[in-house]
Amino acid sequence: MDLAGLAARAEGRAGLPIRERDIERILAALLAAEDIWRIVELAGVPVLAVCAGLECLAEAGWVEMAGSAVRLTPAGEAGCARLRLAPARTLACPRCGGTGLELGLLREIETEFHRLAAGRPDASQEFDQGYVTEETTIARIAALWAKGDLAGKDLLVLGDDDLVSLAAAVTRLPRRVVVLDADPRITSFIAGVAERESLAVEVVPHDLRAPLPPQLERAFDTFACDPTESLAGFLLFAGRGLSALRGPGCAGYLGLTHAEASLAKWRAIQEALLGWGAVITDLRDGFHAYVNWPYVETMRAWERLPVRRVPGGLEPWYRSALLRIELVTEAEVDVGPVEGDIFVDDEAATT
Amino acid sequence: MDLAGLAARAEGRAGLPIRERDIERILAALLAAEDIWRIVELAGVPVLAVCAGLECLAEAGWVEMAGSAVRLTPAGEAGCARLRLAPARTLACPRCGGTGLELGLLREIETEFHRLAAGRPDASQEFDQGYVTEETTIARIAALWAKGDLAGKDLLVLGDDDLVSLAAAVTRLPRRVVVLDADPRITSFIAGVAERESLAVEVVPHDLRAPLPPQLERAFDTFACDPTESLAGFLLFAGRGLSALRGPGCAGYLGLTHAEASLAKWRAIQEALLGWGAVITDLRDGFHAYVNWPYVETMRAWERLPVRRVPGGLEPWYRSALLRIELVTEAEVDVGPVEGDIFVDDEAATT
Repeated sequence: MDLAGLAARAEGRAGLPIRERDIERILAALLAAEDIWRIVELAGVPVLAVCAGLECLAEAGWVEMAGSAVRLTPAGEAGCARLRLAPARTLACPRCGGTGLELGLLREIETEFHRLAAGRPDASQEFDQGYVTEETTIARIAALWAKGDLAGKDLLVLGDDDLVSLAAAVTRLPRRVVVLDADPRITSFIAGVAERESLAVEVVPHDLRAPLPPQLERAFDTFACDPTESLAGFLLFAGRGLSALRGPGCAGYLGLTHAEASLAKWRAIQEALLGWGAVITDLRDGFHAYVNWPYVETMRAWERLPVRRVPGGLEPWYRSALLRIELVTEAEVDVGPVEGDIFVDDEAATT
Repeated sequence: MDLAGLAARAEGRAGLPIRERDIERILAALLAAEDIWRIVELAGVPVLAVCAGLECLAEAGWVEMAGSAVRLTPAGEAGCARLRLAPARTLACPRCGGTGLELGLLREIETEFHRLAAGRPDASQEFDQGYVTEETTIARIAALWAKGDLAGKDLLVLGDDDLVSLAAAVTRLPRRVVVLDADPRITSFIAGVAERESLAVEVVPHDLRAPLPPQLERAFDTFACDPTESLAGFLLFAGRGLSALRGPGCAGYLGLTHAEASLAKWRAIQEALLGWGAVITDLRDGFHAYVNWPYVETMRAWERLPVRRVPGGLEPWYRSALLRIELVTEAEVDVGPVEGDIFVDDEAATT
């Protein structure tokens, strides 16, 4: 079988870029796992690319479905050996889960955060939500702290189903914490906890399709967000964040997946960020692990999966990289008001 | 005292970009350490920026030198408190040293590598050498392995005082390992070890100022290098590496420091890499730790240090990020032959 030809066929079917190397990654994942969600996680390519790739591999006789499992056939195994493909490995450090960070200093914060987050709103498909594990939120706070972007700084959180604002406020390290969200369930939950616990979090109901309120422009040292992953949607979040920063030396944190973004989209995102005056200072793949959301069966990728199994709530397969950018010049962002759906492009899988 | 004014003064003196935030980073390092090398490491800004910044801070009465120590004065401490600056923290995971990688599976490889590396050539100033710790070389191999860039792949190492080629060959995972180096001590050491130990490493004496030998163009899946850090020198290594890759999906690994590269330089590098058809997939700050080289007292930054102490051989202060790039399109590199010195620019400190 010709991998390049198969990649081209899968690309045509999925309508998003799929290269020979993506097919290799799917095969390497199949050499290491049988469960569809673990395969998606290990392959590290868009979910819709995995779906199309598996379909084409099945047609070529390399892959078979058995119940909820996906397996290489003997022909597929022989093919992988011929191609010298090795099983996918993450080699993630068992202590820090691959984050590289020592979370020991934040144990008390984490315990407190678990208590505050109890009763949080479920992830809503309307706002393309899907939140990270609470341990991941703490790791994100640790990353801000280690980079000097938390203590004594003014922090803006753009969209906060991850409850980063509460975790940041619990540390008592930031000078100011402001959170914007369009979902009234999120804003009222955060405002309620903040009031009850006397945490200094300012909550502003705001739809990011509109530009920031003027008093929030150029007013922060740090922003954090976990953007929706359509190209336009991602850049909308990033652009709003950058326009909230005071200037050079101020930093933004974003999440970026492989599940909904090809590397071609990553490149387009990076080009835009650099063009706006930022530099990429950190990009830690797989840093964030997500709690499975309740709308898996109505998400866009569901119908295209070769086998369908609803993953358990705490069985992370959807991960994102931690992307830290820092302004090197004044921000030059040209994102005005936006209308309509910001969630869907060819690679979107979870909306 | 006005940090912005002090940054501008330091910038004028050092002749490289120094922002207010860089001065903050130097102060945060001073809140955590007194030793000049640890301050340089924690500040995460160019060595020459640290030197100029400390000089200006001393003139402002915030900093004093005492023997080989650098300390905040009471006025400096009060100023940091007023600015709400917090001590620098790395929060690096104690198990993986911040790399995020589990090296347990590579223990035998590491033991073997230590044996092979015994008697390696000293770092030479003529070639701007300075090699990473042997544990770091193994961590770099682990990164390649975890990303699917080692097993069954063709690997090119451009400049190899780190002995990446030997460590890769010891795993017996790559299909092919080729190493280029201009230093006859390095090429003969690697060739000698490879022959004695029956390791499949092809050694090619080559000065990277000249384009690659034609048979090495578009012939590899992966390249690895630790470039000299002048902007032109870095892009020379990266460009040669990209032109050695077969095409989309193939990847390169590079080291990039803060010690010799401002974030403005990082941004210029990233813009060039994206323009050549690559995307940044991973950027792990502080991943590589270096063994101190024997020519500290003749390096460019020595005379500008506010206090002078020769650091011990295994007392890492010079670190670099692991930068992984991957081709998204065919490589479009426009680096022809280069002449003269490729090591020095305004930010170079160790040449």
